[in-house]
Amino acid sequence: MIHLNAFLMGVGHHEAAWRLPESDPFAQTDVAHFTRLARTAERGKLDSVFLADSPVLFNSVGRRPAGTLEPTVLLTALAVATSRIGLIATASTTYNEPFNLARRFASLDHVSGGRAGWNIVTTAGVDAARNFNLDDLPAHRDRYERAAEFVDVSLKLWDSWDDAAPLGDKAAGRWGDDELIHRPEHRGRHFRVAGPLNVPRPPQGHPLLVQAGSSEDGKQLAARYAEAVFTAQQTLGEAQEFYRDLKRRTAEAGRDPDTIKILPGIVPAIGATEAEAHALEAELDRLIRPEYARQQLATTLRVAPEDLHLDRELPADLPAEDEIEGAKSRYTLIVTLARRERLTVRQLIGRLGGGRGHRTFAGTPEQVADAIETWYRSGAADGFNIMPPVLPSGLEAFVDHVVPILQRRGLFRTEYTGSTLREHYGLPRPANRFARPAVAAVR
Amino acid sequence: MIHLNAFLMGVGHHEAAWRLPESDPFAQTDVAHFTRLARTAERGKLDSVFLADSPVLFNSVGRRPAGTLEPTVLLTALAVATSRIGLIATASTTYNEPFNLARRFASLDHVSGGRAGWNIVTTAGVDAARNFNLDDLPAHRDRYERAAEFVDVSLKLWDSWDDAAPLGDKAAGRWGDDELIHRPEHRGRHFRVAGPLNVPRPPQGHPLLVQAGSSEDGKQLAARYAEAVFTAQQTLGEAQEFYRDLKRRTAEAGRDPDTIKILPGIVPAIGATEAEAHALEAELDRLIRPEYARQQLATTLRVAPEDLHLDRELPADLPAEDEIEGAKSRYTLIVTLARRERLTVRQLIGRLGGGRGHRTFAGTPEQVADAIETWYRSGAADGFNIMPPVLPSGLEAFVDHVVPILQRRGLFRTEYTGSTLREHYGLPRPANRFARPAVAAVR
Ligand SMILES: Cc1cc2nc3c(=O)[nH]c(=O)nc-3n(C[C@H](O)[C@H](O)[C@H](O)COP(=O)(O)O)c2cc1C
Ligand SMILES: Cc1cc2nc3c(=O)[nH]c(=O)nc-3n(C[C@H](O)[C@H](O)[C@H](O)COP(=O)(O)O)c2cc1C
Repeated sequence: MIHLNAFLMGVGHHEAAWRLPESDPFAQTDVAHFTRLARTAERGKLDSVFLADSPVLFNSVGRRPAGTLEPTVLLTALAVATSRIGLIATASTTYNEPFNLARRFASLDHVSGGRAGWNIVTTAGVDAARNFNLDDLPAHRDRYERAAEFVDVSLKLWDSWDDAAPLGDKAAGRWGDDELIHRPEHRGRHFRVAGPLNVPRPPQGHPLLVQAGSSEDGKQLAARYAEAVFTAQQTLGEAQEFYRDLKRRTAEAGRDPDTIKILPGIVPAIGATEAEAHALEAELDRLIRPEYARQQLATTLRVAPEDLHLDRELPADLPAEDEIEGAKSRYTLIVTLARRERLTVRQLIGRLGGGRGHRTFAGTPEQVADAIETWYRSGAADGFNIMPPVLPSGLEAFVDHVVPILQRRGLFRTEYTGSTLREHYGLPRPANRFARPAVAAVR
Repeated sequence: MIHLNAFLMGVGHHEAAWRLPESDPFAQTDVAHFTRLARTAERGKLDSVFLADSPVLFNSVGRRPAGTLEPTVLLTALAVATSRIGLIATASTTYNEPFNLARRFASLDHVSGGRAGWNIVTTAGVDAARNFNLDDLPAHRDRYERAAEFVDVSLKLWDSWDDAAPLGDKAAGRWGDDELIHRPEHRGRHFRVAGPLNVPRPPQGHPLLVQAGSSEDGKQLAARYAEAVFTAQQTLGEAQEFYRDLKRRTAEAGRDPDTIKILPGIVPAIGATEAEAHALEAELDRLIRPEYARQQLATTLRVAPEDLHLDRELPADLPAEDEIEGAKSRYTLIVTLARRERLTVRQLIGRLGGGRGHRTFAGTPEQVADAIETWYRSGAADGFNIMPPVLPSGLEAFVDHVVPILQRRGLFRTEYTGSTLREHYGLPRPANRFARPAVAAVR
């Protein structure tokens, strides 16, 4: 069964989507807009919706809608407005404290009845660091080391309440069993956290753990902890290679490789005919203002904006991935894409503007379903991260026209069979690491 | 006009409320329970609901329902389920980062359409410190110094977007005006935060700032920033003195004393007759298990539990307030109350179990309304923090029977006249500190 996640972003993933007549340019802070999107995804029986995040104001506010609601807050609002769909929020391990974040995810899991997921990111970019008392970005390796310890502490905190700790025994005047509260007393290199958490164990045991960095360190973190992985893959071959590699690493980390679901991104421009789909794509690309994008590309590539000529290819002498302290895998993806297809800067900007490095695909619902089925059957994906170029219309087109095809082909559920996010992804509820073996029999 | 805030806490403020037959012992993590409470408060046209918080699991889970949802998460759920009532969340300046917290409150303000408030606390207790990489509680003075800088940074972040920064100009391809984004570039003793925030300015400009510490440093912080103050006052005389003192300090800080609303707590046990009200109080006190409370009292007073005899008064030699690094004003309140009324430890535990140091009052709706009116007319309060001993029944009794009396007396609104929390409290929307004087005329 294919897993489908709807990656929600303002009025769409294409950077010029807000300029279309149909788009509300202020939708990115409007709960009603996101409620409509989440309900549409739920109508389509999708596994989950997802929000990206970084604690920084990116780029110029001239370029595109800027300023977004904090994801755990926005997803709480969506939890109340929906009943089945999973809710995955991005949160940074570099700029949070484990006690606070574990608490918020546990709270979201309680509010949603077991539908919370956490996309674990380490947050690239010096501008974010400068919002948190730092002058520079912590090194890539240190960020991932902190991330691993952060997740470890969070797992201990979620397990600090035994499922059976609350008793509610009114007659005896005993609300809970103190023996079933476990103090982690974690002392590590990055964190000292005594615990226990001040929220009962989440309905799912732990929220679903999701990961989205594709560097070496990112993949190691995913292999150890992630239950779902978002990734940007441009070609079938690369996607197969990534899939094989991550499943192997997961097995090496001592886990069943079926317990990690790999979801490449796809930006589907859907039309009733192929011509309509291409016309939508062309209209969106026409609305891009390349000045802004060139500026950002120059920052990512660490060159001067003047060195990027819109109608020429990228300069020959660019830094190697190991010189990059920010988002390593994204850097490599952009350079590889440009070189492989010999794109001019203008063409590259068009491709990135459409999907920010994710695979873009224009076609009919049948063609989009084929594209999904092919990758799924070729060992390249357990599912997909659906990134509509325009919202809400692109998600509605996907749910109303692509999902029924996948359902008819027996590739996608026609009804939810479970009620938690873990159940949607076919993952078990984890045991509590502090649970004592049952001793009732020997007592 | 009197201001009324409903302080929500699980199944009630009385520590034994959960043992009543009517109470759901697991309500403290149940959104449906809190939704019912918030809608009841809104039906009564109250100004706001409020959630206390500390990032620590207090006491024994044997004693009473433990583990609570994180307040910004829970209030977001309530924002969606209500339309007018204000939503005040407690959050610690000692264990958060200003960028993250300012972002979450801005997000809650957007989601609720301008109904967010922040109860600014510095968090006493070594157990909380031990959840955040510390071995000991930071000194009281340092916590308040950090709190002042934290609020200052937050205000700058909320103002980092001019109200007019978003343009949404599709034709020109210009979403926002970069000139109207202001970088705080804050560099202080506790924080270095570049900004700007990644959320547009909140609908209220700033969320309502609330403060609840009554020590010297606490009152200074309130005088400088707070727009509403929660406080525990046992007698009319003390409440008048506190009121006068805080209004004077606010004027000295250069502010209009009308812009700070002072709300003492009241725990009303309401009965159709006086006898019924006293019977409810007696039943609740009977259900307290004094062992747990004695343990906690001993910790607060920094004596051994064995030195507290249930049927004797407090020991004579207790520390002075300036030796206390935790919650100073609470310590003094407890000792003063016990000495003044010559309470035995058991009686003191009963009083604290009922209202944790807040004024308890048992009576008919008419008597509760009288108690409220007297303090309001005597210069002791601008309003009240209503702390029902049992929930939801105690809030329903207040809304259905006390509120109509206050309305008939012309002391309380019969309809909401505004839509934001600030409007309920009669406070203006603050100007943006970075706004440039209008220059259109001279251009
Ligand atoms: C679909 C997808 C969504 C992502 N969302 C975020 C995000 O919201 N915030 C973030 O900091 N990184 C996000 N990332 C990860 C970054 O792109 C980048 O890979 C990461 O910050 C650094 O990882 P790396 O150096 O391991 O590649 C996402 C990645 C993918 C594939
Ligand atoms: C109604 C009310 C609610 C309060 N809620 C909290 C709270 O939720 N969390 C907290 O840390 N302190 C809270 N406080 C403040 C503490 O009681 C205590 O005064 C504070 O932590 C330290 O302040 P002080 O030393 O200035 O008195 C509250 C106070 C009042 C009066």
